[in-house]
Amino acid sequence: MDDLKSGGFTLPGEAGYEALTLSLAKRWGADAIRDSDGTTLSADILSAGYSIYKTLCVIRQHNRWIAQHPDCRQQCILSTAPRVCTGEPLFIPLTADFFKEQFAVNDAPDSLSRWQVFDRTENAPLAAGNWAYDAASQSVLVRGRAWHSYTVSFFAWRIWEEISMYNHTTNHWDAEHLMQLDPVHPEAQAYLKEWLAAWCEENPTVNIVRFTSLFYNFAWIWGSDPRKRSLFSDWASYDFTVSTSMLAAFENETGVFLTAEDFIRGGRRSPGHDAPSEAMRAWMQFVQEFVCRLTRELTDIVHRYGKKAYVFYDDSWIGMEPYNGRFPQMNFDGLIKCVFSGFEVRLCAGAPVPVHEIRLHPYLFPVGLGGAPTFMEGGDPGRDARNYWRQVRRALLRCPVERFGLGGYLHLTEGFPDFVNSVETIGGEFRRIRALHAAGSVHALPCKVAVLTAWGKLRSWTLSGHFHEVCDHDLIHILECLAGLPLDVSFIGFEDVKNGALNDADAVICAGRRGTAWSGGELWNDPQVLEAVTAFVYRGGTFLGVNEPSVVEGYANKLRLSAILGVNLGEHSCHGNWQADVRTPEAVAALGAVLPAHETAYLDSPDTEVWLAEQGRLALTRHAFGKGQGFYAGGWRYGAQSARLLLLLLAGKAAHDTLPDTPFVDCAWYPKAGKLALSNQTSVPQSGAVTVCGKTIAFRLDADAMQVLDV
Amino acid sequence: MDDLKSGGFTLPGEAGYEALTLSLAKRWGADAIRDSDGTTLSADILSAGYSIYKTLCVIRQHNRWIAQHPDCRQQCILSTAPRVCTGEPLFIPLTADFFKEQFAVNDAPDSLSRWQVFDRTENAPLAAGNWAYDAASQSVLVRGRAWHSYTVSFFAWRIWEEISMYNHTTNHWDAEHLMQLDPVHPEAQAYLKEWLAAWCEENPTVNIVRFTSLFYNFAWIWGSDPRKRSLFSDWASYDFTVSTSMLAAFENETGVFLTAEDFIRGGRRSPGHDAPSEAMRAWMQFVQEFVCRLTRELTDIVHRYGKKAYVFYDDSWIGMEPYNGRFPQMNFDGLIKCVFSGFEVRLCAGAPVPVHEIRLHPYLFPVGLGGAPTFMEGGDPGRDARNYWRQVRRALLRCPVERFGLGGYLHLTEGFPDFVNSVETIGGEFRRIRALHAAGSVHALPCKVAVLTAWGKLRSWTLSGHFHEVCDHDLIHILECLAGLPLDVSFIGFEDVKNGALNDADAVICAGRRGTAWSGGELWNDPQVLEAVTAFVYRGGTFLGVNEPSVVEGYANKLRLSAILGVNLGEHSCHGNWQADVRTPEAVAALGAVLPAHETAYLDSPDTEVWLAEQGRLALTRHAFGKGQGFYAGGWRYGAQSARLLLLLLAGKAAHDTLPDTPFVDCAWYPKAGKLALSNQTSVPQSGAVTVCGKTIAFRLDADAMQVLDV
Repeated sequence: MDDLKSGGFTLPGEAGYEALTLSLAKRWGADAIRDSDGTTLSADILSAGYSIYKTLCVIRQHNRWIAQHPDCRQQCILSTAPRVCTGEPLFIPLTADFFKEQFAVNDAPDSLSRWQVFDRTENAPLAAGNWAYDAASQSVLVRGRAWHSYTVSFFAWRIWEEISMYNHTTNHWDAEHLMQLDPVHPEAQAYLKEWLAAWCEENPTVNIVRFTSLFYNFAWIWGSDPRKRSLFSDWASYDFTVSTSMLAAFENETGVFLTAEDFIRGGRRSPGHDAPSEAMRAWMQFVQEFVCRLTRELTDIVHRYGKKAYVFYDDSWIGMEPYNGRFPQMNFDGLIKCVFSGFEVRLCAGAPVPVHEIRLHPYLFPVGLGGAPTFMEGGDPGRDARNYWRQVRRALLRCPVERFGLGGYLHLTEGFPDFVNSVETIGGEFRRIRALHAAGSVHALPCKVAVLTAWGKLRSWTLSGHFHEVCDHDLIHILECLAGLPLDVSFIGFEDVKNGALNDADAVICAGRRGTAWSGGELWNDPQVLEAVTAFVYRGGTFLGVNEPSVVEGYANKLRLSAILGVNLGEHSCHGNWQADVRTPEAVAALGAVLPAHETAYLDSPDTEVWLAEQGRLALTRHAFGKGQGFYAGGWRYGAQSARLLLLLLAGKAAHDTLPDTPFVDCAWYPKAGKLALSNQTSVPQSGAVTVCGKTIAFRLDADAMQVLDV
Repeated sequence: MDDLKSGGFTLPGEAGYEALTLSLAKRWGADAIRDSDGTTLSADILSAGYSIYKTLCVIRQHNRWIAQHPDCRQQCILSTAPRVCTGEPLFIPLTADFFKEQFAVNDAPDSLSRWQVFDRTENAPLAAGNWAYDAASQSVLVRGRAWHSYTVSFFAWRIWEEISMYNHTTNHWDAEHLMQLDPVHPEAQAYLKEWLAAWCEENPTVNIVRFTSLFYNFAWIWGSDPRKRSLFSDWASYDFTVSTSMLAAFENETGVFLTAEDFIRGGRRSPGHDAPSEAMRAWMQFVQEFVCRLTRELTDIVHRYGKKAYVFYDDSWIGMEPYNGRFPQMNFDGLIKCVFSGFEVRLCAGAPVPVHEIRLHPYLFPVGLGGAPTFMEGGDPGRDARNYWRQVRRALLRCPVERFGLGGYLHLTEGFPDFVNSVETIGGEFRRIRALHAAGSVHALPCKVAVLTAWGKLRSWTLSGHFHEVCDHDLIHILECLAGLPLDVSFIGFEDVKNGALNDADAVICAGRRGTAWSGGELWNDPQVLEAVTAFVYRGGTFLGVNEPSVVEGYANKLRLSAILGVNLGEHSCHGNWQADVRTPEAVAALGAVLPAHETAYLDSPDTEVWLAEQGRLALTRHAFGKGQGFYAGGWRYGAQSARLLLLLLAGKAAHDTLPDTPFVDCAWYPKAGKLALSNQTSVPQSGAVTVCGKTIAFRLDADAMQVLDV
């Protein structure tokens, strides 16, 4: 075990700044040094006794080979914007809508045979005899019905690797555009394995190969018009795994035939926010198996050279699913996740892999999120680091993580001594927490919480990307609350519910707008699911429904769980409303949490208690049902107060033991270590008291501070 | 033609206040005197030379006869609140949810055979063998599936006429509860006709029989719990026409068999806000035919006695539809409508009947809407009268109405001289407007507007009740705007669209939330409708879509008219958005109108112009399409400014001619009369100018005032 001053820390080294690199490595207690995109480590650094990470992007930087094997470029399916037929023949240019530097039409015969022209007015494919492709103009001539709208779904080559494209475009680089090869092709696989072996040979000083990342990027489709550059962007989408070859392989193995429309879905595609179709589940599973198989061949090569293989969990991560049960077969030695938030710490920590490493923010870049200044004039990276760290720390208190690190360009830290100090403090706290976990399990309240979504376990501790990318979805707020709460949390799907998963739960959460994967959408249209949940609550369980859980259209009672929740949803202006008095329980009122009220939620039972409301609209209700209870919240937003409120709803009275009397301080109790860690979630001092094992302890915490007390 | 001081006015007389009655009759220029509910006219009044109206409630006040013919009571179908089966037999008490003074279980054999027990979890009826009725406890025993919810739909006798029940309960009367007989029974019809003839014999001084109103009240179902007294209330619902006998007659004539669920629809019933099912349309038509046939027999009796038959268009109006094409067959001499708003004036004026009479507000009651004081301390009935009158007047300027009147208790006016003066002024203005129409048609801009709803012509100029009852629906705001605009307005349905109705339109409006009758709901799921509307706009038409028109679930593009509107709806957080600059045209900016912005509307075309927005959300957009244009508004709220904005959108540049340069003044031009009427829509003075026939006229109007100028 390292001491509290050093160990478990990966520093981004920078050539040309050898002295700085080695001095900060010492000060921050690094035991490993990594390169960053565009940086190389010099001999002085490589020989200084640190573990050396080197970044490896498997599918990029093979332009020469790809030029000789253009059929091994990656593909995807695109669909043109709908165009109205006025009765005349309609010419639809294929490339007009898309960024021409990203896409080129794939009009090879095995591609053309899969193209579809769709009548979007009737949502039906147009018979093949009614349209024709004109290769010269790269257009499709449609003989359609007057006043109907038509789209063409076609296959495109992707001719610019998207992360490279983004960095390139954002930073106005003028280097060669890097392409990505598609390892679905046997010749590409052979090439890659040979290339990786050669790379290992050529990099004897590297201890850890950091895959950044695997083969297929999340979907990121750019448009031709700068006024709408991003047409579709989804961190969880498998759209960029699609190619004529992968489809043929899929059909060959499964006997299932997918059409372009299975992926295009009227232009909506399949964002992670939508419950996946059966077809999409089958496709994802097939891709996961392929990615797993090939990845294992690559990690085997790395291991053969005595190196370790870590993988960065972003960019081309698609198909590598830490929670699909197959992840250990890839045989990675470590998983690296960049974290803004607590839920991302849990996402990383929960993956079955020997080493978990979190990359902290801010990155050592001049600008951060949304272009705000960081390591430049006007920036305050020390403050940023503390703000992110507070979020991360409360999750770290709940789960062991072995390593942490930074990314970017080290020389940028010059002139920001507050940041340098902050990282030192953070490192000390990180190691202290790691030591607490090492002594034995952290204490959790006797309350097992199951988060129910269409994705179930596969999307444990995540939606689709970082907090700020999905913050209009309630569930991410719930996850961020849960990340630091003393609860045993699992993620379940609707099949799990039918297979008895609720037998092992004390409380169930379902949170999201109607029709989303998070609320379950149409999956609630299954009496077996309703039976299981109803029985679970009647027998004593707690169900928390947030926003529009269990909504299925076609029923007068849109909220299918209205019997449990005592609340229903929807326009009902001719129907009477129960007179409701807001009676906020004292413990809830004391927290001062504010939840969004729902526009059309209304009381559906005379017994439903209204705990929070806003101008007559329901924000939080409780309904006793059998021995259990249903809570309904109009929405959820993360905050220290709402996190504590969530705990109160789920764990009831148990929530008061071993918890500070202020919601602004989180705590974790390590019985084996005999320690209590307190974490100030604010940037002002906090004081209060906490009772552990019948002993009440008063505390006073500085701004941002953590304290570890003996108990 | 009466002069401007008298004529066309119906005064509510009051016995015991003969001098007051005759003096106000003179001052206000009455030519007719009516009784009110609970008042009788004395001989002094009857002999003073005025036309005499007498109120007649056809179905009430037959308690003795009904006691002898209990099978002739009216009925309806009720459905219990859903109850969860826990695995044990489930007893569902039928009457527990309902107001016991309004309903009694009808467990006669022809009723019982139509009862349904529904599994609401599966939305399927429970097989008859799995439930049983226990007459002793008036409960149904359900052997259901554990954790499913069940309801019982059963027939109930209605044992208290609802208007009487409301007045009784509100005023704490203790008189006998009046029941209503159901004229579906031949013996009831025979009795009614005999009774009416006798009544005519006994009332020789009555000139006009005022039916208040016909046979079936709008639906108004009260609950057992005072905390939710009104379970369902809908002014347009045919729920109270349902009885075992009417169903049998319907089945006999149409061969169509309806079940209880056709009416109950999972507890939602069929509010007028929902697009009617085919079954409901057939039922309504059957009821209308029945009501028409029997009504004609009654008006024939009245006419045989040399009296006129007027009908009050409220309360038990169901089945009497002024816009169903069959109304003239009823042979009424007059239609009386109480009006709060302009659209109600148009509703009345447009009906094919010789005399139209509007009942103005406030009623001569101590309290008005929502219990606010009127003719009592704290009330200001003169101000109220002027406020209502301003709304009514702008509609009267657009359409001829022959008569107006008041209702209530005349003695209450004592002590409110401002009110007495106001009515005198209003009477003068009413008669002046009537004279303008008499001289020739009012001028309209060359713009034919069609309002498209699921109801089409049947619900011309109305939703379901008064403005304040439906003011959360955009369309009522649109109608109130249209009521005073110089446009030719018609109401069309989706079949009309398919049958070429748009050939006769310059502009089409569709306004409402998704799934409502007003937005059309699922009726947009018809390519022929989309074709017709698309062609209409492409060829030069204007389409105004408000809130969620043409939304059909199951399409990625929820707004099926997105090609026309350049706007789409729905959650699309992974899809890019067009950068939008708000560019408000000068003429729009000058009006200062504010429209609600839609939560999830987004631009779907690079060419869509954003005219109004609120914090990035769309409030008003324009999209050129072919030679025409699509406007999208996030919602609509009535006001002088938004009314003028509506005119601008629909009529374009033509809107500037013959219109005041301030939106706060409405005007109407009568070319034959050579007159221009200006109406100040505010209670402060307004000035401006208006150009008619190339001549610009400056004006200055006092608060509330109307002016008629020579042009």
